[in-house]
Amino acid sequence: MKARMTPAIQYHKKHQGKLKITPKTALKTRAEMNLAYTPGVAEPCIEIAKNKALAYDYTLKGRVVAIVSDGSAVLGLGNIGPYGALPVMEGKAALLYRFSGIEAFPIVLSTQNEAEIIETVCAISPTFAAIMLEDISAPRCVSIERTLEQRLDIPVFHDDQHGTAIVVGAALLNAARLLNKPLASMKVVVSGTGAAGSNILRILHRLGVRALYAINIHGVVRQNVRDQSDFVIQELLDEGIISEPNPDIIDLRGLIKNTDAFIGVSAPHILTQDMVASMRKDPIVFALANPVPEIMPDAALAAGAKIIGTGRSDFPNQINNVLVFPGLMKGLIASRARNVTMEMKLQALYALADLIKDDLRTDYILPDIFDNRLAPTISEAIIREAQKEKPSD
Amino acid sequence: MKARMTPAIQYHKKHQGKLKITPKTALKTRAEMNLAYTPGVAEPCIEIAKNKALAYDYTLKGRVVAIVSDGSAVLGLGNIGPYGALPVMEGKAALLYRFSGIEAFPIVLSTQNEAEIIETVCAISPTFAAIMLEDISAPRCVSIERTLEQRLDIPVFHDDQHGTAIVVGAALLNAARLLNKPLASMKVVVSGTGAAGSNILRILHRLGVRALYAINIHGVVRQNVRDQSDFVIQELLDEGIISEPNPDIIDLRGLIKNTDAFIGVSAPHILTQDMVASMRKDPIVFALANPVPEIMPDAALAAGAKIIGTGRSDFPNQINNVLVFPGLMKGLIASRARNVTMEMKLQALYALADLIKDDLRTDYILPDIFDNRLAPTISEAIIREAQKEKPSD
Repeated sequence: MKARMTPAIQYHKKHQGKLKITPKTALKTRAEMNLAYTPGVAEPCIEIAKNKALAYDYTLKGRVVAIVSDGSAVLGLGNIGPYGALPVMEGKAALLYRFSGIEAFPIVLSTQNEAEIIETVCAISPTFAAIMLEDISAPRCVSIERTLEQRLDIPVFHDDQHGTAIVVGAALLNAARLLNKPLASMKVVVSGTGAAGSNILRILHRLGVRALYAINIHGVVRQNVRDQSDFVIQELLDEGIISEPNPDIIDLRGLIKNTDAFIGVSAPHILTQDMVASMRKDPIVFALANPVPEIMPDAALAAGAKIIGTGRSDFPNQINNVLVFPGLMKGLIASRARNVTMEMKLQALYALADLIKDDLRTDYILPDIFDNRLAPTISEAIIREAQKEKPSD
Repeated sequence: MKARMTPAIQYHKKHQGKLKITPKTALKTRAEMNLAYTPGVAEPCIEIAKNKALAYDYTLKGRVVAIVSDGSAVLGLGNIGPYGALPVMEGKAALLYRFSGIEAFPIVLSTQNEAEIIETVCAISPTFAAIMLEDISAPRCVSIERTLEQRLDIPVFHDDQHGTAIVVGAALLNAARLLNKPLASMKVVVSGTGAAGSNILRILHRLGVRALYAINIHGVVRQNVRDQSDFVIQELLDEGIISEPNPDIIDLRGLIKNTDAFIGVSAPHILTQDMVASMRKDPIVFALANPVPEIMPDAALAAGAKIIGTGRSDFPNQINNVLVFPGLMKGLIASRARNVTMEMKLQALYALADLIKDDLRTDYILPDIFDNRLAPTISEAIIREAQKEKPSD
């Protein structure tokens, strides 16, 4: 079987992946080796054994993030396993470095068992400054992240959950500002209640949106329909984050009528022009299914959408995690924060939204991913918040 | 508590460790990002999901070794835990790159439980081309390595066991050649039966040494003394690798009398000048306890030792794993060998010994660690042997 040879495959084959691990010094002389290895190395070992916090100063533990995946929910590709997921994890590490200077190493796992994933990440955690979870399917990703947060003394961040939610929140905040729609009176439909959708709902609630409706592959989410619910959805219902629609509303067509915003993290082409036309005045449409969105931007605009955002780089208003995670990880590492709190996520969200001032336009509600203010601004917001949360010594 | 500031600690603090992870390309443009990350990255993902062997071509899996330790037996420092062990693992990775160009990443574990170590290494194995185990205490290291060899489809190599054995074997081979002592008629005492000692015994047996005596912290190793034996020693006895000394021999003083060679991987200063003087003509002494050997070279030579080797760089005949593991790992990765066989280890041993030709002298039985023939020669020997062992397609 001959593999295809596209430009992207040639790129990967030429470099045999995307990351390189090299010594920081050339180790040319015996004198230098005596410092870096035996006998000199015994000295930092002994000091760290006495005070493990010194590992942050004397080793890569102070600098390097693990990007961990079981390959169960990769990009738009689904459950392609650890080997198939590795190019994405390497790519994520390369992006993290490209945008923030933070180093990362990918770890793909031969298990998709929740308990085994947790034990493995705990076991390897002494090596790392932080853990980024990636492309692990919902709702397992939520319980894995929560357990790891409890058990580890380093921050754990699942970008698919929180990175997406932060960027969507910032985008909606700026869209609302531009259109003079107060968040508290907005009606918002979220399509998709997995890793991204459930946390979008949670963060929009924190931003003050009170009418939040949800729909997923099983239909409209409501309290009395139990069979469609996993524990993540159940929590959102129990905490009153998802609003109860009228009993006669049974599909997206019914749910979206007279709402202000549609946020899709679901499936291609599920949103029609009719539906957009049925929304309130100046509708906001974030169609984030990748690579094919819930509705194509041109179609949405023709149907009356005022602001449209997608996950794609070939349309305006790209709503992409890379706007946030580099600065966020940089801030976590600089502040040696132990957890990623909701308040930190909100501060990252506000910092991101605030990068657009008077230049706010319907086709410019978020900075470009190459905007070099991003990582410094967001990392500073995280550091400030981490400082505030630190127990006084 | 203020940490000490020695040159070695300053070196580690200045660089915050010894390894750097960087993207292979600068990712400056959107076009390049589209190849390295979404949407282009989906193509290698899909190809690898269909044929996981392509992960060797398209990702760092084809290049990067994991250096794994639980910190239970670090250098001469003992059980200092994962954080304390990290500078050594980073250093080992730096050495591997320095001498062979092979990249490695250190993984230190928060568990010292044998089963948990095995499960963790299996779980993270899809990321790596090979596993190097480091500084795991005996006899756990032996069973961990054996189980991993069975379960993994990538090579596993515990340097403390086999790297040391290969270098000691090459040193003894050259010492025997120089002194015209046939291995088959040599009497050899090995002091220490842990990771290194047990495999030195095994490889010397394969080289043809028939009179092999062993002693450890519990005394002289013999068949009828069960209470001192772990399963590793028991195997060596059962396979007839360790010879049975006379019943009246109860200590090193008795055991070493009239032998040709002493190999110590044990403790400082346990070998006296009297004992060296009691050996056969032209005795060979490898005193490898680190940093303080079983006997100091000058004392051994004054007592009549003909050839003395230590683990130290400040004396001639440095018997150091770094002579072997870089070339061996390079050969394993180039050949994509699945296991490290005994025959590969022997070929590495012969290749190492053969680097010294007519220039063989009592103070030059092994090449210097900076001899740049080392890694190419040993890796070629491994590749040749791996080729021979490969099942024909």
